[in-house]
Amino acid sequence: MAVYTEVSDADLEAFIAEYDLGRIVSFKGIAEGVENSNYLLQMDTATYILTLYEKRVAREDLPFFLALMEHLAANGVPCPQPIHGKDGKALRNLCGKPAAVVSFLQGMWPQRILPDHCRLLGGTLATMHLVGERFSKSRPNDLGLKGLEKLFDSCENKADSVRKGLTSEIREELDLLSKDWPRGLPEGIIHADLFPDNVFFLGNKLSGFIDFYFACNDFFAYELAICLNAWCFEADGSFNITNAGHMISAYRTVRPLSPEEVEALPVLSRGAAMRFLLTRLYDWLNQEDGALVRPKDPLEFLRRLHFHKSVKSPLAYGIV
Amino acid sequence: MAVYTEVSDADLEAFIAEYDLGRIVSFKGIAEGVENSNYLLQMDTATYILTLYEKRVAREDLPFFLALMEHLAANGVPCPQPIHGKDGKALRNLCGKPAAVVSFLQGMWPQRILPDHCRLLGGTLATMHLVGERFSKSRPNDLGLKGLEKLFDSCENKADSVRKGLTSEIREELDLLSKDWPRGLPEGIIHADLFPDNVFFLGNKLSGFIDFYFACNDFFAYELAICLNAWCFEADGSFNITNAGHMISAYRTVRPLSPEEVEALPVLSRGAAMRFLLTRLYDWLNQEDGALVRPKDPLEFLRRLHFHKSVKSPLAYGIV
Repeated sequence: MAVYTEVSDADLEAFIAEYDLGRIVSFKGIAEGVENSNYLLQMDTATYILTLYEKRVAREDLPFFLALMEHLAANGVPCPQPIHGKDGKALRNLCGKPAAVVSFLQGMWPQRILPDHCRLLGGTLATMHLVGERFSKSRPNDLGLKGLEKLFDSCENKADSVRKGLTSEIREELDLLSKDWPRGLPEGIIHADLFPDNVFFLGNKLSGFIDFYFACNDFFAYELAICLNAWCFEADGSFNITNAGHMISAYRTVRPLSPEEVEALPVLSRGAAMRFLLTRLYDWLNQEDGALVRPKDPLEFLRRLHFHKSVKSPLAYGIV
Repeated sequence: MAVYTEVSDADLEAFIAEYDLGRIVSFKGIAEGVENSNYLLQMDTATYILTLYEKRVAREDLPFFLALMEHLAANGVPCPQPIHGKDGKALRNLCGKPAAVVSFLQGMWPQRILPDHCRLLGGTLATMHLVGERFSKSRPNDLGLKGLEKLFDSCENKADSVRKGLTSEIREELDLLSKDWPRGLPEGIIHADLFPDNVFFLGNKLSGFIDFYFACNDFFAYELAICLNAWCFEADGSFNITNAGHMISAYRTVRPLSPEEVEALPVLSRGAAMRFLLTRLYDWLNQEDGALVRPKDPLEFLRRLHFHKSVKSPLAYGIV
């Protein structure tokens, strides 16, 4: 949770004057999102979210993310819709930073994950993958295996300070992953960060996905592997096979998985666990003094990695 | 800015079921207020603020604060209105903490203070003082001179670590203040923390006061002295006599000041500067590891204290 940039009254007024949205009624920083500054912007006719993109998001990627949200929203995948200014532009500047206004999404993210959440997630995720196939832009996954190796190079010599033996364990696993990583699976646009706090529910519906700022092209099944990591572990570290089964079978009713995709789930899940282990490890080792956000425990994903390594077959993920 | 308590879905649902407010549409932590956890709660019919009172607010004082807001709102002083549950209660519990829902107040606090803000503040402040005279409850000022002496006792031996000579300067000033402090001035309910971030404006109106959690009984003129400290200094430390003049003359058109009140403004302003110097000093010296809020610089108020000590007469505050 964070608001990194304070927006002055005059800057806000000038920024909003570029849109045709009416009169500002309220403007509050919201304690959500760790990468960017988010404000709830209430106008006299509707509510919006104003995002200032902080240093972690590359400016040159923003047109991709905004166009993707627009494409998805226009094709029935619930997500915030970028709002265009009077000049037609959705991406602007505010306080020297890239900024955009998007429509407000009703709903809340679930703190306690129920099988129903996973079922709704699986179905909507598959729809998003299908709809994404008609999206014309693409973006490589910076946090694919090569990206992860580079990330690890930068923190390898400090990893053992977090846990003895971590350096060699990660190095060994990265080598195994690059050897075993599948090739030729169906791919397309994936969200790549679909943790529960990026998925809103309202009543008994999934009301939308948010935070598309890791979206990229990669294997569709890798997204499922990320979601297995993000949605199917209990606080005590145990795997919730019921949640996993609901998610995967709901996904398959919308977009069938090939046998190769099913077979690849264990190794893809190891790769996904490694992705969050390494980004968390990097953040852990590179904490800034006075940071407003506490880094998350990287070892949580080491334990998830160990689970995936123990898996004998895709049946362990509740596949029926 | 902070959200100290995470509210689970189930806890929120059970809490909201105690009210007659409709269906929850959105629930977001907001990055405002350093003392409590605040959430923007959107129901299908209206928007509210849900506050969880963290350790700094004494539970036994909450009925006073809530009743005061209710009295003021009912008598035309714009401020959030506490919402009663089906059982008639406005103060409840959530996540083991006292909690209340209040109406949502439109508007924004001004980051750049203009004379018009000060004029609107002065008039509404005087109205609040008059309306408060018909409020039946009372609460002593914990941060009056005696409270400040006690607070300083607890950090006296570390004050010189912040600035050499600070201990003796504060001790000397506290002695002077207790000697020179006025007696018998008109008193009643004051907000006692009316900094710009507690006052909302919308268009060319003051839309309301928020955060009544220091409200107490004290001299009305002491509130003006607090506002002189809070609204009339520039970022470079200089005093803005135009702002001060607008505030005081707008106040006097609603509630005339006696000659004794005017005469007392310099010493009351010294006391008000000392109040914020000492609470900030205490917070500075008692930072918790991993705190989400950076303490504010206490020395800012030492400089304001120096200004008030240099003042030869109330005319220095723009009184005409």
